[in-house]
Order: sequence, then C-alpha cells, then structure tokens
Amino acid sequence: MAHLKLTVILDSGARFGPGKAALLESVRDTGSIAAAARAMGMDYKRAWTLLDSLDRAYEAPLILRSAGGTHGGGATLTPFGAELLARFRRLEAEAIASDPGLVAFERLARQDAGPKT
Amino acid sequence: MAHLKLTVILDSGARFGPGKAALLESVRDTGSIAAAARAMGMDYKRAWTLLDSLDRAYEAPLILRSAGGTHGGGATLTPFGAELLARFRRLEAEAIASDPGLVAFERLARQDAGPKT
Repeated sequence: MAHLKLTVILDSGARFGPGKAALLESVRDTGSIAAAARAMGMDYKRAWTLLDSLDRAYEAPLILRSAGGTHGGGATLTPFGAELLARFRRLEAEAIASDPGLVAFERLARQDAGPKT
Repeated sequence: MAHLKLTVILDSGARFGPGKAALLESVRDTGSIAAAARAMGMDYKRAWTLLDSLDRAYEAPLILRSAGGTHGGGATLTPFGAELLARFRRLEAEAIASDPGLVAFERLARQDAGPKT
C-alpha cells in the first residue's frame, strides 16, 4: 500500500520529519546518541547532525546529554522533545487515517518504477 | 505558521509530492510543459525529469503531449492525471485540517535556525 511521508516545515525552514522522529525515539529507547545511531544503522556523524539541527531549530533543548567521552555519555529526551515527538506521531496518525485516499495512488502503479525522482 | 509537507510514497518507491503536484497544475494551467516549467521558475530539463518519473510510475499516462518541436507542442492532463492531482490536494487539505497540532511546532522555534537539515 502506498504510504504518506509527512514533514513539518517550520517558519525558519527547519524540518521535523520521519527521520528525526525515528532518531529521537531511538535516543529515548537506547539512552545514548551513539547507541541510537547504531540501532538505526546510521552513522554517528549523521545522527549528530540531525540532532544538532533540531537544537538549532528551537530555543529549548529536545535532548539532554550527560557527560562522557567522545561518542560516550548518555542522552535522554527532555519533556519538550518528548512532546514534539508525540505531536509529530499524532499528526502522522491523523494523516494516515485518511487512508482511503491512498489506495487510489496504487491503482495502475508500476511496481518497478525505477529511480526515485 | 509551521506547515506540513506531505508526500505519497508508492510501493515501488516512486513519490508523488508537492513539487510534482504543482508542476501538474502548471501544465494544466499553461497547456505546455515548457510554459509550466517557466511559470514555476524551473528549468525544462527538471520539469521533464519529474514528469517522466510519473510516467514511469504508472501504467497509464498522467499527461498527454501533442506534437511540436523541441520544447514545443502542447500538454494537457489526462483524466487519470487530474484525478491523482485532485486526490493529492485532498489528502493535503485533510492533513492541514489537523492544524492545531502544528501550532505547537512553532512554540520555542528559532526564526534563524540556519541550514535546512
């Protein structure tokens, strides 16, 4: 079935989408940025960049880092980070609730459409 | 106000999102691919690539091209193209109807968040 990808675009141009949501969930579940990245098969640098862009997008932190060496230390979501994450998942769920409209997109769709443009 | 970007991802991995929707509308309104691209400040090659990816994504054409020279000839939406376009705009409208959730994303947002990651 076709599915929806939903991204929130802030006035500043900063984005909050499925990649960052999944990363925040992974940080919440693993307790560290390095472990979160590993669990997602994402390299640490990429995870760090995504989280840094969230930090720069908001006045308040979404993640609390605790002390530790390079790639070390723990990380947890702040209540603000947890709230934004929950809101994003709720928006997605609401959009997906309009599923009947999505069925139409697979009618006549080729399964081997080639490169994703 | 923060806004939503919504993309339909087909099983094949092909995408139908705001860029293609706007281009289809522009073709419908201008009657040619070249004029559509021009109206959007998009280069012809880019417009052609996007429309070609839609052609490859579906068994049925979304656009009918009429004869003409290079970059010439007219183009119109097929009923199928018009239907997918309308469905996409409807999905977007439904997602945007959940606006109250979006307000929260601007709370504490920095207006100068820097590069879009």
